[in-house]
Amino acid sequence: MRPMEQGQGQEPKRGQGPGALVIVGGGEDRPGEILETFVRLAGGDRARVVVMTAASDAPVDLERQYCEAFRQLGAAEISCLRTAHRHDAESPGVVEAIERATAVFLTGGSQQNLIDRLRGTPAHEALRRRHVEGLVIGGTSAGASAMSETMLVSGTSEDDPYAGCAELGPGLSLLPGAIVDQHFTQRGRIGSLLSALAERPDLVGLGIAEDTALVVSGRRFDVIGSGSVTVLDAASLSHCRRVTHHKKEALALCGVLLHSLPTGLRVRS
Amino acid sequence: MRPMEQGQGQEPKRGQGPGALVIVGGGEDRPGEILETFVRLAGGDRARVVVMTAASDAPVDLERQYCEAFRQLGAAEISCLRTAHRHDAESPGVVEAIERATAVFLTGGSQQNLIDRLRGTPAHEALRRRHVEGLVIGGTSAGASAMSETMLVSGTSEDDPYAGCAELGPGLSLLPGAIVDQHFTQRGRIGSLLSALAERPDLVGLGIAEDTALVVSGRRFDVIGSGSVTVLDAASLSHCRRVTHHKKEALALCGVLLHSLPTGLRVRS
Repeated sequence: MRPMEQGQGQEPKRGQGPGALVIVGGGEDRPGEILETFVRLAGGDRARVVVMTAASDAPVDLERQYCEAFRQLGAAEISCLRTAHRHDAESPGVVEAIERATAVFLTGGSQQNLIDRLRGTPAHEALRRRHVEGLVIGGTSAGASAMSETMLVSGTSEDDPYAGCAELGPGLSLLPGAIVDQHFTQRGRIGSLLSALAERPDLVGLGIAEDTALVVSGRRFDVIGSGSVTVLDAASLSHCRRVTHHKKEALALCGVLLHSLPTGLRVRS
Repeated sequence: MRPMEQGQGQEPKRGQGPGALVIVGGGEDRPGEILETFVRLAGGDRARVVVMTAASDAPVDLERQYCEAFRQLGAAEISCLRTAHRHDAESPGVVEAIERATAVFLTGGSQQNLIDRLRGTPAHEALRRRHVEGLVIGGTSAGASAMSETMLVSGTSEDDPYAGCAELGPGLSLLPGAIVDQHFTQRGRIGSLLSALAERPDLVGLGIAEDTALVVSGRRFDVIGSGSVTVLDAASLSHCRRVTHHKKEALALCGVLLHSLPTGLRVRS
């Protein structure tokens, strides 16, 4: 990983490989720098944005907020897909909307809802196929966690690492090689992400603070918003062991590499 | 650093070099495993324990709680030194009590109080001299932070690292080479400790969870209690930079080594 100078570089052009992923730690300003970047990557005044509230059991307010924000930011078309049930994500109308979109935004809620309602459906397949072709995908909170291949289904807050405190499951497989947690700084989630890495040290842990996003464009990573992205790299764990203590299995982890990347920082892998 | 097998090794004998330091992250059970270990290290039923409430502005309750706990744990003698003003720490009676003690326990409160009232006084000099000769010193919360040479005077919670979020000052200089933070896990203090290390990458950051203690005996480190000690080693920072964003100077830190050491783990340096 190589940190680069701060600055406003060229945005990647659409149609050149996979679209950008805008992975948001929740609680972003609406509108604000993060959603503005999302709309710009999606084509600005030519953007056709689809808001998907599959993670949420209370989608009405979210749809209203995001539609209003994207309208203010000048997107050309905005539509909402309320896939509250799996069969919604199987309908040709939903697939067609994704096919037409330049960007899809996954709202917060429960990442398990998102997986239960989308994973393996024609809508999910359309998302993956179109992403490879250039579709920009944003996700906040649950929508951020769900982007990885192996997903942090749930974790605890303000806890030291212990076996079982992070539940893992399959995600939407848009972001390979990483596992994402959100509301990371504000909820004290490092113990939970470390516990996940103890099980999967082959993955890079990405802990994203609120009102902060990691923008992944090919091999380029930009941090935007107001906070930092914490990167935990457990590839060189020198010691990883369970220590039974009373009824809990605490985890000993030695040699995790930590990077704290604030907004404005750019990294190339 | 070399993690060792879990187990109950031999306690270091008194009179062989400096006494043990029992560095407690606050909120410890009273009595409980940590205070029990402290009394055992102090000589068990021959322990002469002095409780110092210099950090606190409300010492009465603390004195009652700790005296009761140490009594239950079988210490031979327990006395309280209420050095609420600097001149108290200059009195021959206070120095004499420290000279007679086998162990001193520093309660919580404000670490700046502790420094203002003790640092550079005859009581502080007695503590340092007797510690080198074998005096066991315990400290919890503010009493833990104050043990280091460079002390974290104050920091923020649930924040990403930024310049100025950790205030540093001189401590009691009992523990060289490290900087201690407490209530670490429960208050989300890693951003604050990382900010301190950005200023002083030569120091090792020790983040101690509540009801958890790091017991330092010569070159041996044991974690006891119910949580973990997070060790942050910034010696090999590959990149450390301020990133101005709005009015805040966020800190970029790359290559901090993180170890999470749960209770029962022993390390030799």
